[in-house]
Amino acid sequence: MMTDPPERPNFSSFFNDEKVLITGGLGFIGSNLARRLVAYGARVTVVDNLEPHHGGNLHNVEPFKQHLRVHVADVCAEEPINQLVAGQAYLFNLAGQSSHLDAMSNPLSDLRANGIAQIQILEACRNHNRDVRIVFASTRQVYGVPRYLPVDERHPAQPVDINGWNKLAAEGYHQVYYRAYGIRSTTLRLTNTYGPGMRIKDDRQNFLGYWVGLLLRGQTLRIFGNGTQVRDFNYVEDVIDALLLAACSSGAVGASWNLGGGQPYSLLDTAQHLIAAHGGGDYECVPFPAERIAIDIGDYRASAEKIRADLGWKPNTSLPDGLQRTFAFYRANLSHYL
Amino acid sequence: MMTDPPERPNFSSFFNDEKVLITGGLGFIGSNLARRLVAYGARVTVVDNLEPHHGGNLHNVEPFKQHLRVHVADVCAEEPINQLVAGQAYLFNLAGQSSHLDAMSNPLSDLRANGIAQIQILEACRNHNRDVRIVFASTRQVYGVPRYLPVDERHPAQPVDINGWNKLAAEGYHQVYYRAYGIRSTTLRLTNTYGPGMRIKDDRQNFLGYWVGLLLRGQTLRIFGNGTQVRDFNYVEDVIDALLLAACSSGAVGASWNLGGGQPYSLLDTAQHLIAAHGGGDYECVPFPAERIAIDIGDYRASAEKIRADLGWKPNTSLPDGLQRTFAFYRANLSHYL
Repeated sequence: MMTDPPERPNFSSFFNDEKVLITGGLGFIGSNLARRLVAYGARVTVVDNLEPHHGGNLHNVEPFKQHLRVHVADVCAEEPINQLVAGQAYLFNLAGQSSHLDAMSNPLSDLRANGIAQIQILEACRNHNRDVRIVFASTRQVYGVPRYLPVDERHPAQPVDINGWNKLAAEGYHQVYYRAYGIRSTTLRLTNTYGPGMRIKDDRQNFLGYWVGLLLRGQTLRIFGNGTQVRDFNYVEDVIDALLLAACSSGAVGASWNLGGGQPYSLLDTAQHLIAAHGGGDYECVPFPAERIAIDIGDYRASAEKIRADLGWKPNTSLPDGLQRTFAFYRANLSHYL
Repeated sequence: MMTDPPERPNFSSFFNDEKVLITGGLGFIGSNLARRLVAYGARVTVVDNLEPHHGGNLHNVEPFKQHLRVHVADVCAEEPINQLVAGQAYLFNLAGQSSHLDAMSNPLSDLRANGIAQIQILEACRNHNRDVRIVFASTRQVYGVPRYLPVDERHPAQPVDINGWNKLAAEGYHQVYYRAYGIRSTTLRLTNTYGPGMRIKDDRQNFLGYWVGLLLRGQTLRIFGNGTQVRDFNYVEDVIDALLLAACSSGAVGASWNLGGGQPYSLLDTAQHLIAAHGGGDYECVPFPAERIAIDIGDYRASAEKIRADLGWKPNTSLPDGLQRTFAFYRANLSHYL
């Protein structure tokens, strides 16, 4: 039975004057979230280690940096995260390492960024702020190779790479801290997110950002395999909506929800949309490199029916529209991202 | 359809003169395994950090130490594990931290022992010995609160504590290293294991060992709750059989199997069996402490049908018999374990 989705909260009245901490807040999604929260009148603190292989970039907050507290620090250390967490009403927990290949070549580094850091953050909450409301950004990678499509939240979690296992365990840590200490958290499992502020100089964040960067440099896109593989995408502003809705919901505690749910595209179609949005460019299909095929998940598209029913969220931005806005941003800001 | 279980391999001819490394090899299960392998003529190396809160105890290998190479070292460091792994035919990977309460009070320490150490061990295999055959000791704790009984391997993995999530991720690491690098491993999910060599001075390893220690000191057993909670137990020699059978099997690669499968007992019945085996003692029922109820899993008993069908393993030692042998050991060796 389909029920009417709940009415959308008014973010401005909800977050106005509220204290909000964003871990990974100089990164792609964190900085877009910070901008929105600043616009709603929240008192926003971001913490980010600006690790060169991750997504943090000071330019991401340049236009509104006077309205933020910015801490460049590593949350793997007990300080300053203890002090930063104390007194916050909301914690958007977006810190992490997202490269699957980097996690395979340096698994201890991934465990540090996605495991140790998460425990340190949750320990800070346990010891200094059990009333904080957490929204944690996880990944579709926890599902591994889909056994059916679209992937809903009942799909077994069977990651195929180190990053997926560490992110799954981090989801688990959040559940444990809710169950044992009452610290309320909601997990969102993101699929490919794209838009202004994403890492475009390499494929460490996601392949779509890398492709945007290649086209802007006049280079040829390389598609691994025959290009029929299917992915889904969310424009970053839609993801921000989901993060905010989750934080506003009292019913979402202890749950994990998929994002995704928009129109899926083959890699070939995706490449063609990028080239159209850029106004030119080339692609070629090349064989899968061995290190990628070992951790490839095949086709993926998510069902976001649960978050639609529970929170009224759905993606609103089409891939062509989102790509137009993305290229417009990078044409104006390219030097800060290459 | 029930098929006949496969014929048991001859361990003496299988392991004779083979190079075998046991991580956690001074611990309860590791040292019992080492003794058996030495008896089969294997060239056994054990590595153990002798961390005071874990299970390692030099006395465990005292009677046969001249037939072993013993390394007291921390496998979280890149050396010496790289050197120790090189050239081994078998790796019984039993290193870890098993206290659920300690993992909750010090989750970073648990992540170090069950996460960082495991990645370091697997990295050593990737870089120095991809042909090694691994048997990894995991835990029933990965299942969390049973949704049905007995728990078989299709039961969802939804741990309720930090230890369970870290062990589940460590199982995942082993699968990833098999899938990506061809490093063959088999995971056994142990339930309560008891017998000579277990930690009895506190409840860090398992409650049954703690109870043995209490009775030997003339102290009263405390049962949390009303005592109707069900558990299953394996005598350590049965667990050693399972570890050896898994290592001998070429078909077990990439799989996880439950142990358990013996007669389940309520905590009350367990206490009464202990008191009978000891020849006296008392117990009392007390309310669950808050920190325990937060991570309690309720009744648990495993189905070990899969490993029976695939490897011909089943537990052979009854609880009364195993407890007799256990108390006999501790009466003769008590000073080394209290």
